[in-house]
Amino acid sequence: MSIDPKHRMPKFDDTFIEQFHELLAWRRDVRHFKTTPVDRQILEQICKFADMAPSVGNSQPWRFVQVSDAQKRVQIQQSFLKSNEQALQGYEGEQAALYAKLKLSGLKEAPEHFAVFCDEACSQGAGLGRQTMPETLAYSCVMAIYNFWLAARAFEIGVGWVSILDPVEVQEALQVPDSWKLVAYLCVGKDARPHDTPELERVGWQARTEAQKRFLLD
Amino acid sequence: MSIDPKHRMPKFDDTFIEQFHELLAWRRDVRHFKTTPVDRQILEQICKFADMAPSVGNSQPWRFVQVSDAQKRVQIQQSFLKSNEQALQGYEGEQAALYAKLKLSGLKEAPEHFAVFCDEACSQGAGLGRQTMPETLAYSCVMAIYNFWLAARAFEIGVGWVSILDPVEVQEALQVPDSWKLVAYLCVGKDARPHDTPELERVGWQARTEAQKRFLLD
Repeated sequence: MSIDPKHRMPKFDDTFIEQFHELLAWRRDVRHFKTTPVDRQILEQICKFADMAPSVGNSQPWRFVQVSDAQKRVQIQQSFLKSNEQALQGYEGEQAALYAKLKLSGLKEAPEHFAVFCDEACSQGAGLGRQTMPETLAYSCVMAIYNFWLAARAFEIGVGWVSILDPVEVQEALQVPDSWKLVAYLCVGKDARPHDTPELERVGWQARTEAQKRFLLD
Repeated sequence: MSIDPKHRMPKFDDTFIEQFHELLAWRRDVRHFKTTPVDRQILEQICKFADMAPSVGNSQPWRFVQVSDAQKRVQIQQSFLKSNEQALQGYEGEQAALYAKLKLSGLKEAPEHFAVFCDEACSQGAGLGRQTMPETLAYSCVMAIYNFWLAARAFEIGVGWVSILDPVEVQEALQVPDSWKLVAYLCVGKDARPHDTPELERVGWQARTEAQKRFLLD
């Protein structure tokens, strides 16, 4: 007996929608981690959720590389320190003083690290959907990263996205193929300070603003 | 009495995690829409979920523009038809024949359209986190789009991401500021053919592949 897929489509009730809202509200970009390692099975489950992301032409171009090697982690940390020092030079006065005090990565404490690349040479999907907007390949990877992030939070694991890095230095440190372009470097582990308000808002760098200007509805 | 935020952090139980898995499994890139308009309040709710996305430096650079004007929609449709015809020229033989038969957008039937832009001139966040990887600004918009997509599905609304468009033509048709760069054009409405398998897989263009090569765990 064939079942019409229409009749298998699940309903998402108010309770689920409220909990999904909570998941988004408590997601956070985590910089304060407990050093306890994350169970391998939990990591595998989170990766399965990540792999369910949409992708242009069904290309699935994301490449998640776990980084456990101590020497490689030192190279990443050095790239961060250098990039962060350069970023600091772009600020002046009070803003520079505040920037210098910000904790912008959990690279030292996070028990698990993942570098996420986009394989720009990915043949899967045969190029469909990415002729006029080739950046959709990297965008597909971003959605896989966000699935990873949300699933991690559901499993009580925090994720911090570090972008203050030289992407070429990361690519070289990890010796990945030339066609793999860095999309994100993720710190992963138990969140030492869970909160429902972004840290940059709490420390006075940047609060969220009113949504109206971002949504122009007719 | 102050409440330690640690004690307010919600727990996500197995039931929620299963339902979240279902949400990801049934999300789909929708191209077959019912023409029934979407309730304005539902659209507003979906936009609220979209606005909860993470963003580099808390910059919130996404700009969602609803497109209801018939003339503007014609211009978008023309850009799609031209871009799709050009894409077809890149295929040969059986692949070209299959490509020509694919339904790659629901622009004609979808009751609601949204163009989503990234404001590259966005000063919110004061540039934090985007010196070495400026593309993280657009990536923030991708996560807002994905929030929109997932929330829509939870509210029984389908979303289709159209990338076969000339981004400059869309920008011009909608007369948005020069600094607003197109990230996605979304068709939104009731899904006429819900399914848990990607359409590109069902029609034989591209199946999903084994996850192992995408997740290199130590």
